[in-house]
Amino acid sequence: MPKVFEKSLREVAEEIEKITLSRENGIHVAKSLRMRRGDSLIVSDGEGRDFCCEIEQTSPEVVLKVLFVAPTDTEPEVYITLYQGVPKGDKFAQVVKQCTEIGVSEFVPVIMARSISRPDEKTAAKKVERWRKIAHEAAGQSRRGIIPKVADMMSLEDSVKKLSGDRAIVFYESGGEGLKDILNDFKRENVHSADIFIGPEGGFEPSEVEALKNAGARVATLGRRILRTQTAPLAASANIIYELSSP
Amino acid sequence: MPKVFEKSLREVAEEIEKITLSRENGIHVAKSLRMRRGDSLIVSDGEGRDFCCEIEQTSPEVVLKVLFVAPTDTEPEVYITLYQGVPKGDKFAQVVKQCTEIGVSEFVPVIMARSISRPDEKTAAKKVERWRKIAHEAAGQSRRGIIPKVADMMSLEDSVKKLSGDRAIVFYESGGEGLKDILNDFKRENVHSADIFIGPEGGFEPSEVEALKNAGARVATLGRRILRTQTAPLAASANIIYELSSP
Repeated sequence: MPKVFEKSLREVAEEIEKITLSRENGIHVAKSLRMRRGDSLIVSDGEGRDFCCEIEQTSPEVVLKVLFVAPTDTEPEVYITLYQGVPKGDKFAQVVKQCTEIGVSEFVPVIMARSISRPDEKTAAKKVERWRKIAHEAAGQSRRGIIPKVADMMSLEDSVKKLSGDRAIVFYESGGEGLKDILNDFKRENVHSADIFIGPEGGFEPSEVEALKNAGARVATLGRRILRTQTAPLAASANIIYELSSP
Repeated sequence: MPKVFEKSLREVAEEIEKITLSRENGIHVAKSLRMRRGDSLIVSDGEGRDFCCEIEQTSPEVVLKVLFVAPTDTEPEVYITLYQGVPKGDKFAQVVKQCTEIGVSEFVPVIMARSISRPDEKTAAKKVERWRKIAHEAAGQSRRGIIPKVADMMSLEDSVKKLSGDRAIVFYESGGEGLKDILNDFKRENVHSADIFIGPEGGFEPSEVEALKNAGARVATLGRRILRTQTAPLAASANIIYELSSP
């Protein structure tokens, strides 16, 4: 059953019987998905509530009949924020798409020492806008309960300031602890969030890893094989969700 | 340190002092990687032996001085064979690339009931050839000890015949056991291989899952979110390696 997000639902009461989709969602449902009267659709408020609906009409607007409202059950029990060194070209778009499916809840593009891409303010804003759109679409397709946030690009210093205590894990190509040991500690300490750091194509500068360690982050090995910067976050987040969330 | 594979090394003795690269590898090293005399390079026989070398000359051929030979230490302790329903377009190329990095050892493209792509024999052979090339390149870049095999396309019936007992896991969008429970059984039974089955875009037909179950496969849930056919094998193989291999 397809799923779309309607922010306006935040304000509606539980007793709502009909939903009129926004123009944009209406076009998506009627034109792109080619859905018709009688088809089923989930509409989510993007904050944990799903409205299971049947399409009543598609023209001039898409109007849905609400069959039932339920809390979304597709969110992982661990809130992952991915801090990634901005990679070249369009690689981060693929990361946002695939990690949204896997269950990452927040993306922070970080300009790191070895980031080759250093867009000016206007280009950066455009890129972030595009990543937000991709997160939105992927969240609907994968039936997430929330739309993952994509933060504005920031420096590593600023990302270090955002860190809260000891929930951060730096994946370092030059080695560190096994991820399993770290996640077993997280389980023991009942930790339900993880801030993960992945370097850009050239990896981290040792001074960057040092700065993150000083801020309380733990350093994990990425394993014995070399993962590219667009593959590492998928493996890392899949493993964290495997270990800290029920399937 | 870059890595290339030289099949001819299979026949050489351990006492080898110099290696002359094949024309193709020579061009790759001297032209694409722009390596020079004095640079370091790992040459692998693709069967678990790595030759750590220094470049002695790059013209007219690339000649290396062998500094030491060591068994490769980058292979996961679990041998994963990915049977994937052939997806549309070029998606399987991305799967082969990323899953080679993660550590999958063998790929079997399977024409399943809901595979939309049904290439004729010639097109299929061309595609498989291309996937083999991608596996070769990705193995070098990620420093694998072997080049993952890519089998010819086959039917689901033929893939079922290839299965050996109870090491098979079908990832089914309509639910099944938790992967953790299955992998804990594998650990207890000291299993070091896994045959994983992922459906094409439209997923499995129930009869296909039934056939695999009858052949001894266990059915695992892909979790509560919808993973696309090109994301599911990455998450699945990353989790299996996380659980059954040391990092």
